[in-house]
Amino acid sequence: MNFKEDFEEKKDIIDNALNRLLPGEEVEPAIVHRAIRYSVFSGGKRLRPFLSLATAELLGNKIEKVLYFACGIELIHTFSLIHDDLPSLDNDDFRRGKPSLHKVFGENIAILAGDALMVLGFQSILKSEEIKEIKKSSILKVLKEMVYFLGTENLLGGQIEDITMKSEEANRENLYKIYQKKTASLICAAIRGSAILCQARQKELKALTRFANNIGLSFQITDDILDLMQDQREMKQCTYPHTFGLKESKEVAEKLIKEAKESLEMFGEKAEIMNALADYILSRGS
Amino acid sequence: MNFKEDFEEKKDIIDNALNRLLPGEEVEPAIVHRAIRYSVFSGGKRLRPFLSLATAELLGNKIEKVLYFACGIELIHTFSLIHDDLPSLDNDDFRRGKPSLHKVFGENIAILAGDALMVLGFQSILKSEEIKEIKKSSILKVLKEMVYFLGTENLLGGQIEDITMKSEEANRENLYKIYQKKTASLICAAIRGSAILCQARQKELKALTRFANNIGLSFQITDDILDLMQDQREMKQCTYPHTFGLKESKEVAEKLIKEAKESLEMFGEKAEIMNALADYILSRGS
Repeated sequence: MNFKEDFEEKKDIIDNALNRLLPGEEVEPAIVHRAIRYSVFSGGKRLRPFLSLATAELLGNKIEKVLYFACGIELIHTFSLIHDDLPSLDNDDFRRGKPSLHKVFGENIAILAGDALMVLGFQSILKSEEIKEIKKSSILKVLKEMVYFLGTENLLGGQIEDITMKSEEANRENLYKIYQKKTASLICAAIRGSAILCQARQKELKALTRFANNIGLSFQITDDILDLMQDQREMKQCTYPHTFGLKESKEVAEKLIKEAKESLEMFGEKAEIMNALADYILSRGS
Repeated sequence: MNFKEDFEEKKDIIDNALNRLLPGEEVEPAIVHRAIRYSVFSGGKRLRPFLSLATAELLGNKIEKVLYFACGIELIHTFSLIHDDLPSLDNDDFRRGKPSLHKVFGENIAILAGDALMVLGFQSILKSEEIKEIKKSSILKVLKEMVYFLGTENLLGGQIEDITMKSEEANRENLYKIYQKKTASLICAAIRGSAILCQARQKELKALTRFANNIGLSFQITDDILDLMQDQREMKQCTYPHTFGLKESKEVAEKLIKEAKESLEMFGEKAEIMNALADYILSRGS
């Protein structure tokens, strides 16, 4: 299977599922549903839900089994971007080349639309109950992982450390820790949650977790490399490339992807798509 | 049982449980955990979790069975207050006589602490799985209700309508609708969720739902009466007492409480505490 084709095909499946899941723009209060759709359909690559679907396939399952879960991950990801962009946080006026949500709908609607997206994310994951082959205990397990990866130990904690970190604290250890929390954790949730719904064995789950954390860290480093090179937004102080330079950053990103792919050796050829995705992440920053 | 004693006793049980559930103030990132505790322990009456515990007792269950759930409701309630107080929303500098969270910790921390409280709320509800007598299917059902009552159809939708409503739209029908969404829905979730965990029969659930909606509406009207009389914050335009006067508002609040108590007639004397709570709600605004 050609990776690019597979990526586009899954992206369409995810976009269609999200479109069916979200309330229409005419549903009252219409302003928040318009805001939600503005953010969800603003050109995201659907990396996280793609990983959920690819994980299911890797484990010999149909993607339909984890489609609700995958959409839930993307909705929660969108929530985190909206709140992260707010004036009192990163104060980003643009997201994916379009004005960010609060610039178009105002800060109040952006805050509440973000809240609603978190709720919709959980709602979508809960819809997995409609799928017969999925056990109730698996859904509860996935939800427990979700709150763990989303809470102050991980995603939200990483966002807070990102805004409170001083540039003199930006050593390798601290940067890894923040990248793990603010980026790798949700990628990890996307892969592990899917694996749990597909009843992966412990050994498989461990390998996939290592893969997830490695590509997650590499993804954030390449993202920061891109920001630094394109100089698109106000220079962030506490990033890996800013602190340790482009050369070391590229080497680290490469090493992480190499190790990610090694983690999946037990799956043999079945890991082809996941490995291609890992290479794709690296290619963005080089 | 004396109502006031029962109310205080349950409040202590809830406060202790919340204290055990929440991360300590020293846990990193400490600033967000300090912010969370500032908001959660700021003198809330614990009305919603009290209702969850009282519902369990009314149905012949121990309160321990629904304690995690009750705490989850209070954490989600606290999240909604924090975001509601933000400058771009209600812009309230004070909450329960203390400076509101964003005044003390800044807007960025208030936004993320609110987000984290929603996550902690779900996490607390999920902990109900530790209680043996609770079925996994009941927890999933409660979570599905939770996202329904919390989403844009209810709580968050009500908050949005509250900020977008124009004073000429403040007719009885619209005000009831907003009060139902922004206030009654979470009170309804607190009572229904507890009843579901206690495997209430359909008839009991229906009676309790009617009770919940009635006291929820009455609670918001008496709240607005108190605001109007004390003139503590900037005059809100779209409230029942502002639009239809104190006299009619008090009459409506009274009628709602009368009907709430009638809904519980089937429970006989066992509804004593719930009925006393209903009277307490009314007494606040008179």
